[in-house]
Amino acid sequence: MSAGFTEIIAIGNELLIGDVQDTNTTWLCKRITGLGGFVARATLIRDEPATIGELLLATLRRGAAAIFTTGGLGPTADDLTLPAIAAALGRPLVELPAARDMVQATYTRLARAGYVAHDRLTDERRKMAVLPAGAEPLFNPVGAAPGVVLRESGAAIICLPGVPEELQGIFEQSLGPLLRELYGEGFYDERIIQVQSGDESALAPVVNRLAAGHPQVYVKSRAKAYGPDVRLRITLSARGDGRAAVEALLERAAGDLQRELAAIGIAVM
Amino acid sequence: MSAGFTEIIAIGNELLIGDVQDTNTTWLCKRITGLGGFVARATLIRDEPATIGELLLATLRRGAAAIFTTGGLGPTADDLTLPAIAAALGRPLVELPAARDMVQATYTRLARAGYVAHDRLTDERRKMAVLPAGAEPLFNPVGAAPGVVLRESGAAIICLPGVPEELQGIFEQSLGPLLRELYGEGFYDERIIQVQSGDESALAPVVNRLAAGHPQVYVKSRAKAYGPDVRLRITLSARGDGRAAVEALLERAAGDLQRELAAIGIAVM
Repeated sequence: MSAGFTEIIAIGNELLIGDVQDTNTTWLCKRITGLGGFVARATLIRDEPATIGELLLATLRRGAAAIFTTGGLGPTADDLTLPAIAAALGRPLVELPAARDMVQATYTRLARAGYVAHDRLTDERRKMAVLPAGAEPLFNPVGAAPGVVLRESGAAIICLPGVPEELQGIFEQSLGPLLRELYGEGFYDERIIQVQSGDESALAPVVNRLAAGHPQVYVKSRAKAYGPDVRLRITLSARGDGRAAVEALLERAAGDLQRELAAIGIAVM
Repeated sequence: MSAGFTEIIAIGNELLIGDVQDTNTTWLCKRITGLGGFVARATLIRDEPATIGELLLATLRRGAAAIFTTGGLGPTADDLTLPAIAAALGRPLVELPAARDMVQATYTRLARAGYVAHDRLTDERRKMAVLPAGAEPLFNPVGAAPGVVLRESGAAIICLPGVPEELQGIFEQSLGPLLRELYGEGFYDERIIQVQSGDESALAPVVNRLAAGHPQVYVKSRAKAYGPDVRLRITLSARGDGRAAVEALLERAAGDLQRELAAIGIAVM
């Protein structure tokens, strides 16, 4: 199981004016949870360096073992994540040769394919290789901006681009060793049980008893809007060291739930 | 224009295990921005009373004029938003007759329609009428749990259910006077300009100059993944007192942008 918790910081005005749905946070939460990690919090903020830096420091103070940031790594002046992090951590920004080679290789590939006019490293392209001192660049298999890993006060800060395909490409292809270091051999699983009652209030005593009787299992019921075709979803989930222990916890809880539901005449779908 | 800023607190473990995409935050951001409000931050947290209370107090300390919470108003024991808020603000929880009447009316309607078995106020149903002292209940046209408005330290705290249809129903039908009080006659608009260049780095100098020349207009460019069919979106947005002033700002910026793009041979779509 993970030694500590994870937080996500999603950066971009477009998220807070409602122009773009932040799917990156949900995607990261699902992947990290599946690796046995625990995402405690996710915060969406604007492209404001002072806010980015203040929130990063607050997250470190809360004791997060891993902090993922999304967005703000691109070539334009409103891509401010790395300068803001460098300032907050008191580190200079330096052009990193390994990152520059990655950016150059991407533009060489894009120019050959005819997607961009030339492969020279302009100031704007070069900006994507300027990272806080001590950073490790992460190969981006989709776009130009490398991801970035920083170590600070025992925590790993992982900066990913905001374009979902780039974020997912870096996570899947370039983060393997770090993810194993952070989340180890932890295991997470869940069971979803759908029932044919549209009345969450009738189910509440059952759900409450189940949660009290299975403290290691997280029990959550979710109602949809009311109506004749409405279903309720009860999710049982657990984290632990290894698959066998987690499955045993869920098996016992699911058995108890189904017995309790049958006793009050609610059908499981 | 709004006198202060707005924050959103989205509550629910399902958001942080990646089981549910948080569409409520995006919806609220879009609506509040459209009313002339400024959403500074949105935070997704788990169903943990201590975390809910701590974040609410931190948000009040930051000086938010409006704080929307989503989720955790239902009848089950994992619906903890209102007890957590009451504890954080040092207010007792009281059963409010106006809220109880709303809950009763909903179950009477649901029972008549055959969606629930009976309309008696069980303990679980009654829980939805137990609110922090001083709360004002908001009619929920879709589900059973009323929304809640609290006033604290000059800020409005607006608690909405997590089911999107209920949240939207309360926002659209029961919040009119409060939204006018909070956001007044502010106005927000945006122009989205799509261009046929897949190379954000080539566009960066133009975007940067435009932003510097139009400080009241927020200029944001967004790249998609690279490829032959790729487009870049440049969003110009502005807030101000009234439509005419905002449209004039956007008109000038859009004109300058189109001239600059034409000068470097980039086509506007």
